[in-house]
Amino acid sequence: MALLNESATGVFIIAVTPFTENGDLDLASTDRMVDFYLERGVTGITVLGVMGEAPKLTAEESRSFVRRVLARVGGRIPTVVGVSSPGLAPMRELANAVMDDGAAGVMVAPPGHLRTDDQIFGYYVSVAEALGDAPFVLQDYPLTTNVQIAPAVLNRIIKDLSTCVMVKHEDWPGLAKISALRAASDKGEVRRVSILTGNGGLFLPEEMGRGADGAMTGFAFPEMMVGVVEAYTRGDAERAHDVFDAYLPYARYEQQPGIGLAVRKHVLAKRGAIGSAALRKPGGALSAAEIAEVERLLARQEKRLKEFG
Amino acid sequence: MALLNESATGVFIIAVTPFTENGDLDLASTDRMVDFYLERGVTGITVLGVMGEAPKLTAEESRSFVRRVLARVGGRIPTVVGVSSPGLAPMRELANAVMDDGAAGVMVAPPGHLRTDDQIFGYYVSVAEALGDAPFVLQDYPLTTNVQIAPAVLNRIIKDLSTCVMVKHEDWPGLAKISALRAASDKGEVRRVSILTGNGGLFLPEEMGRGADGAMTGFAFPEMMVGVVEAYTRGDAERAHDVFDAYLPYARYEQQPGIGLAVRKHVLAKRGAIGSAALRKPGGALSAAEIAEVERLLARQEKRLKEFG
Amino acid sequence: MALLNESATGVFIIAVTPFTENGDLDLASTDRMVDFYLERGVTGITVLGVMGEAPKLTAEESRSFVRRVLARVGGRIPTVVGVSSPGLAPMRELANAVMDDGAAGVMVAPPGHLRTDDQIFGYYVSVAEALGDAPFVLQDYPLTTNVQIAPAVLNRIIKDLSTCVMVKHEDWPGLAKISALRAASDKGEVRRVSILTGNGGLFLPEEMGRGADGAMTGFAFPEMMVGVVEAYTRGDAERAHDVFDAYLPYARYEQQPGIGLAVRKHVLAKRGAIGSAALRKPGGALSAAEIAEVERLLARQEKRLKEFG
Amino acid sequence: MALLNESATGVFIIAVTPFTENGDLDLASTDRMVDFYLERGVTGITVLGVMGEAPKLTAEESRSFVRRVLARVGGRIPTVVGVSSPGLAPMRELANAVMDDGAAGVMVAPPGHLRTDDQIFGYYVSVAEALGDAPFVLQDYPLTTNVQIAPAVLNRIIKDLSTCVMVKHEDWPGLAKISALRAASDKGEVRRVSILTGNGGLFLPEEMGRGADGAMTGFAFPEMMVGVVEAYTRGDAERAHDVFDAYLPYARYEQQPGIGLAVRKHVLAKRGAIGSAALRKPGGALSAAEIAEVERLLARQEKRLKEFG
Repeated sequence: MALLNESATGVFIIAVTPFTENGDLDLASTDRMVDFYLERGVTGITVLGVMGEAPKLTAEESRSFVRRVLARVGGRIPTVVGVSSPGLAPMRELANAVMDDGAAGVMVAPPGHLRTDDQIFGYYVSVAEALGDAPFVLQDYPLTTNVQIAPAVLNRIIKDLSTCVMVKHEDWPGLAKISALRAASDKGEVRRVSILTGNGGLFLPEEMGRGADGAMTGFAFPEMMVGVVEAYTRGDAERAHDVFDAYLPYARYEQQPGIGLAVRKHVLAKRGAIGSAALRKPGGALSAAEIAEVERLLARQEKRLKEFG
Repeated sequence: MALLNESATGVFIIAVTPFTENGDLDLASTDRMVDFYLERGVTGITVLGVMGEAPKLTAEESRSFVRRVLARVGGRIPTVVGVSSPGLAPMRELANAVMDDGAAGVMVAPPGHLRTDDQIFGYYVSVAEALGDAPFVLQDYPLTTNVQIAPAVLNRIIKDLSTCVMVKHEDWPGLAKISALRAASDKGEVRRVSILTGNGGLFLPEEMGRGADGAMTGFAFPEMMVGVVEAYTRGDAERAHDVFDAYLPYARYEQQPGIGLAVRKHVLAKRGAIGSAALRKPGGALSAAEIAEVERLLARQEKRLKEFG
Repeated sequence: MALLNESATGVFIIAVTPFTENGDLDLASTDRMVDFYLERGVTGITVLGVMGEAPKLTAEESRSFVRRVLARVGGRIPTVVGVSSPGLAPMRELANAVMDDGAAGVMVAPPGHLRTDDQIFGYYVSVAEALGDAPFVLQDYPLTTNVQIAPAVLNRIIKDLSTCVMVKHEDWPGLAKISALRAASDKGEVRRVSILTGNGGLFLPEEMGRGADGAMTGFAFPEMMVGVVEAYTRGDAERAHDVFDAYLPYARYEQQPGIGLAVRKHVLAKRGAIGSAALRKPGGALSAAEIAEVERLLARQEKRLKEFG
Repeated sequence: MALLNESATGVFIIAVTPFTENGDLDLASTDRMVDFYLERGVTGITVLGVMGEAPKLTAEESRSFVRRVLARVGGRIPTVVGVSSPGLAPMRELANAVMDDGAAGVMVAPPGHLRTDDQIFGYYVSVAEALGDAPFVLQDYPLTTNVQIAPAVLNRIIKDLSTCVMVKHEDWPGLAKISALRAASDKGEVRRVSILTGNGGLFLPEEMGRGADGAMTGFAFPEMMVGVVEAYTRGDAERAHDVFDAYLPYARYEQQPGIGLAVRKHVLAKRGAIGSAALRKPGGALSAAEIAEVERLLARQEKRLKEFG
């Protein structure tokens, strides 16, 4: 399997973890989900992300799930595995295992106690040392991690750590940060790495305009993100916005803290991508009011997509 | 002037604080801004909110600004004044002053160190005592205050503190909380207070569907919120969503942390509501890229509004 | 092995995790450390605590370390294992494994996102369900977890969840909370559970005075805590303070955030309890200045202990 | 009045704000308190600190209190006034006023949202600009502000902002930071500023050993801090530790979060420094158990001081 590198573009979908109604890991749905994502044009798949339900899995379940995804993907697109951990030893152990299994790279978010520039830089030096040759994605997600990484620190990391090949940019929305990173690589000050963006795609058109290479995030309609990236890449920004706007009312709803993941799984189940919308405990089901709100938004979205062609 | 009470509905606009290019308080623009908001159908106005630039004002400037707003409003609609403060004595002093000047009520957000149910309840008991007869709005804004108030605690406050007449609901988006409050008052367990919602209006249609009475938030196009509330109130939820969707791409952009207020002031200045988009220091200006992004969104919004009639 | 129950008293030492100079888990030192603790009169031992280096271990290392400790302890005193985890499935897996291996109980700290009374209560309901019959210690440590648990919530948990048999009290210093819990059980409102206190023992005499049953914390001189608890238990509060005061200057130094654990391991290594003071990466060594400060404090402590007899 | 400069040494006491039993500002006690502090050998006095009750004062009360302190001090020692504020305009207004009234300098803690090195540096550039010629103390207190300032950032501020003449060091305990600052000025890389330390004096001997010039903190027995600084300054570290150790059991108790200030005021009232131990609301009184604990500690302290001579 080819390793992840700085040239990655397109949509790396953050996969959900499918469970059966009674909370067991649903490996059959895992296959279906991979097919669903591939059919919608994603160019990569990311599993065990910092959000979602990865921490609810046992170590053995995590390994089984990753292996199942890798087997189904069969090398057609790169698979990235989240290996963030409070300790370097468990991080290395998981990273080594999934790289041996065929992952293209791993992703690491910073632990929440990091504050100063030097603390953050020093942490990633340790990470790179622990990961060895494995290419890694730096996940920059202040809203969740509570760690703010200045562009200068990102550039310092990119300069010193050759295995850092991608930034998953999720500084809400942090458009200026993308511009700063691109200005630095345009001037030849640092290597140009891949920048894929997060935040449920809620700023994707603007992020593409600033120089992002695509998105790495979860959204129940990956085809929106694929469409936006394709339109932007061929220079049709207005079309990119048209696609984006059609999905935005629902995308906004799915991106809610708290119930967002339950909404996403509800829609993925409805679309046939997974067998059950169930979240593993703790994690509730949608209320009738929430389902009604989702249904209205989906009906309106479908209508708008038809008008719009 | 009539005091604020539980029957408040519609759109209470969170006013910006206008400054001149060199950072002085711009009282002339204050008049213009009040007119602008009134012409767009707002039913109330809120000044010195927890967000925005109120903390940048000296005590004297705060008083001047409030008096200027009150004079221009001239009692046509209620004016609410944010009086949140780490101390009860300065809170009382400001509240007494603005109520004497003609404010309809005051608004209080909880200080960030409150955690347990009893701590939060006890704090509002102290607040109500400090405020005396002044009706107050409880601002429930966890994303900024870091204080999470359970529905049971809100109900306990509403039961025990008769001067709490409104909840400014800004739990992102916290639709279930609105439902819980309404269920309790529908069953007669507590007084029904006014619920106006925040978050830049980004969930306004759903919030109306859950029983909100309107919005209390800032957005450079108050007519969107007025339109959504009106349509919902007359039972036309689809029309409410149509109005909302037309403004959503830009509303999302304005609601960005960090530069959101600069975006809002840029558009308000462009619309003639204020003389300058300047933020008082610290607080930067928009970059060329940001202005271009705003311009594109506004152009698309205008086009869509035309199509849509 | 007897299970942990509400009658636990004395000193449950929070064990460090010994590593060799090159960062490997040091199982030989583990035996020596257990002996060291037992010889100093501890009545229980707690491993894989929320602080310290448990998160730096791989799953396999954690299991090996726990088994080694259990084997060496040989049932002479109860062993408690920290199983806090962001997910219930990995928590249950580890808890089942260590209970099968002979642990007396497990310990669970709340995840940092819990805020309201109901959220905290609901979390422990899920925990108790996941743990089944295993008795558990509720770790109440706001300074680290950022979760504040009101006495009423603790009592609600104790009432409803019969497997909660101990509170590890580490609300800094939170003496009033101990009094509140004891008042409730004295009145017969709730079961009387064991309360062992943390914070490196820095408030142990006062905590005993309020009704604590002893300490559960790490400190390089467990004999101080054993002495304080014994003196207090036989009614000699002045003697308890004398013992405490003799160790306090150094105890204060060991309790520093940041370097505290390195200090503790330095002294444990010096006392022969472990083979090396090394922390696993990331985690630095003491500077020459720090070692000199420790040496001075230990020399003064020895002198004082001699004077004092 | 002489302005504060880099040569400040000794003990700058953080003054409490005295209130009468019914919560009024107690200006008569203010005189008595100033006398009390002066008689115990303090070399400076700091009012309106980030902790304590400054935020409970109205703007007018703050001004009256500062004027009263300045009048009583009568220029015998420098007075520093805390002017931290979310806005630069109110900060400047207060700073100008107190400097006109005769303060020697002002103190500014960073607002809690600052994270990256550049954000912190940029903030102090704005502060220095707002303060004009007024010398200022940078308060580095991560436990309360949640802002971590790296030594390199402190040095950058000291290099670029000539009016920064002192660091109030309160990084818990952050001994390595003092060493880093002193190493930089010893090598001539930056100006040597005054470093006074906080944290209730709980690490004062070690801080002096690392190169601090004294303490700036509140403690009901300023003579302890005066004694430690004097002994250390004349090279008698053991004597400094002897003095320190005698007060440590109570100092530890006074430094408790939550009730610490009530404890300090209780003892100051008992010692005759202020007329009432009352805290302004919100802020409770000590319980009987707490008073008994304090009394025991004070009795033991007195006994030890006698033994020790």
